[in-house]
Amino acid sequence: MSNNPLRTSVEDLFKKYDLDALWIKSLPVIKYLANFTGSTANLLITSDGKKHLNVDSRYTTQAKEECTVDSVKEITRPIDDLGEMAKEFGIKRLGFESTKASFSEHRTLSKIMNGNEMVPVDDNLMNLRIVKTEDELTKLRTANEIAQKAFAEMVNELHVGWTEKEAAWFLEKRFREYGGSGLSFDTLVCSGPRSAIVHGKPSDRAFKEGEFIIVDRGLFANHFASDETNTFVLGKADAKHKEIYQIVKDAHDRCVDGVKPGVKCSDLDALAREYIHDKGYGEYFGHGTGHGVGLEVHEMPVISPRGDGYLEEGMVFSIEPGIYIPEFGGVRIEDVVAVTADGCEVLTLADKTKFEIPLK
Amino acid sequence: MSNNPLRTSVEDLFKKYDLDALWIKSLPVIKYLANFTGSTANLLITSDGKKHLNVDSRYTTQAKEECTVDSVKEITRPIDDLGEMAKEFGIKRLGFESTKASFSEHRTLSKIMNGNEMVPVDDNLMNLRIVKTEDELTKLRTANEIAQKAFAEMVNELHVGWTEKEAAWFLEKRFREYGGSGLSFDTLVCSGPRSAIVHGKPSDRAFKEGEFIIVDRGLFANHFASDETNTFVLGKADAKHKEIYQIVKDAHDRCVDGVKPGVKCSDLDALAREYIHDKGYGEYFGHGTGHGVGLEVHEMPVISPRGDGYLEEGMVFSIEPGIYIPEFGGVRIEDVVAVTADGCEVLTLADKTKFEIPLK
Repeated sequence: MSNNPLRTSVEDLFKKYDLDALWIKSLPVIKYLANFTGSTANLLITSDGKKHLNVDSRYTTQAKEECTVDSVKEITRPIDDLGEMAKEFGIKRLGFESTKASFSEHRTLSKIMNGNEMVPVDDNLMNLRIVKTEDELTKLRTANEIAQKAFAEMVNELHVGWTEKEAAWFLEKRFREYGGSGLSFDTLVCSGPRSAIVHGKPSDRAFKEGEFIIVDRGLFANHFASDETNTFVLGKADAKHKEIYQIVKDAHDRCVDGVKPGVKCSDLDALAREYIHDKGYGEYFGHGTGHGVGLEVHEMPVISPRGDGYLEEGMVFSIEPGIYIPEFGGVRIEDVVAVTADGCEVLTLADKTKFEIPLK
Repeated sequence: MSNNPLRTSVEDLFKKYDLDALWIKSLPVIKYLANFTGSTANLLITSDGKKHLNVDSRYTTQAKEECTVDSVKEITRPIDDLGEMAKEFGIKRLGFESTKASFSEHRTLSKIMNGNEMVPVDDNLMNLRIVKTEDELTKLRTANEIAQKAFAEMVNELHVGWTEKEAAWFLEKRFREYGGSGLSFDTLVCSGPRSAIVHGKPSDRAFKEGEFIIVDRGLFANHFASDETNTFVLGKADAKHKEIYQIVKDAHDRCVDGVKPGVKCSDLDALAREYIHDKGYGEYFGHGTGHGVGLEVHEMPVISPRGDGYLEEGMVFSIEPGIYIPEFGGVRIEDVVAVTADGCEVLTLADKTKFEIPLK
């Protein structure tokens, strides 16, 4: 067992909770542990390490083809059938994801388990996959290459009068055409005062000269997510825009330079946060500095003041400090990095040094 | 209180469970009851009918603008802050959605509520909105008009050699360009033997002459979903393809003709199911005949052998019988209807009578 609270394994969980079996319903965890890519399934892992996947009739053939499991069973009543299976296996202590199982699923299983124990597992199972393999890193690189091919074209098209919605859609079409299977989150394109909205939706507002334009975008390819943010100004930026951009850029660079195995997640966050604070903009940076990226666009680790644990080689996460000034505008600069033996590899590919886009 | 088990109201739930307050976390229910369109919120309704919405800082401004509630509170710890609010209000019996609240949310709230009761509400809250208003019907019509404009262009383009993925993407682009905000579900385009997969994903398979092509598609517009399925043959259909198409079409038409207030959902299902069975294809129709469509693409009522309750004016649902023969191919014909005073209005707009597409 690792001394890093971010690391866990199925074996660790069996020991920690003294389990006979562990029921998993989170799809990304099932994808990770069993390679199932459908939309509904339940996985039962027994103490001998065997994996039993229950799916409905839509997924029987697919699961038998793609999954790395010991059995695939076609079921019609997901929770009842899971309970019957656990009883049949003689499970006395069944672990379950306490933040994922619903009250009624727990109630139904408890009844079927009839005196045997349902054990709430409070650990974040995302941590099982917090360290990426070389194969996973390759897939993340591919997702970022597709994203960049599309994004470079969008940057070439950026012009006064284009709307946030038009720009977002221009990008999304190319994401798909260049090999993305879908968006990893709703594309965010916000301009002018709207760029100060941390999670704004693209509107019909047209781009104007000299204002900030934030473009935060991501796609899925081969089941892995990309996530990246640039901020631009059309034409020449004035002193205020330049100052804010430079502070965020410097905070971002300090963080990227600070990544290496052993660094605490909260200390990495502090590198950006303290710098922005020292420059007098602390109150305008309200969110965490970063989050893990992999099969989901938000996974572990969390890079924030409350971020537990420390970095290890193979962890992949975003670094995305920002300054958002209400009524004026905001800047966010986001890259995704993979921790290496002595630093990091930046997986995202867009240039963050140039933010002034010449007028056409 | 209605004698139709499909009908309920917030007042009914308060009476049935003897509640002081009801906590709602399902977003479509919160959209329906409070007009919130963001991605996270918790709604607390008290016995005086007042609605209290808790959101995080991303949504404070938006919620104050768009929501029909008595208070909007910006919170940082969703469940803890909800519990404190319930305590502050002196709530003794707090209802919650038993299939939506997680085990750990229930555990946390129970602790904060400290002896006061957490009451599992097992009713399907989708039923609150099972009868659509005229305004909701108008939005559903608009969604279907956008869908049809795009679909008509796709049908004109259908040709041998086009792949399932290409056809799906052709359609999705137009959905968006004609005013859809997104897909209501993953577009399904499956051809040849793949058309027998009930929930298949578009592949790189190219269309061939004389085989079935199923196109099941839907979009969101103004937060309301469309959902519709056509099945085609490129060129001339042979006798077997014609026979199967006609059986499904007749089963579909019997159902559409059978819709009117008072009909039991299970009896409506039987109109299609028994017909397909009598024609000798019963074993090839495994799914329900239909499902409600509204703010979500799958809502109440359920039109299946186990479908509870009966139809009332204003209910909106799909009618989508099918026959799927492994290795050979499948047919599904799906329309969405709104129950009227003496029958139904078909909201979907694509022609289901012509399924042979002339070769180009």
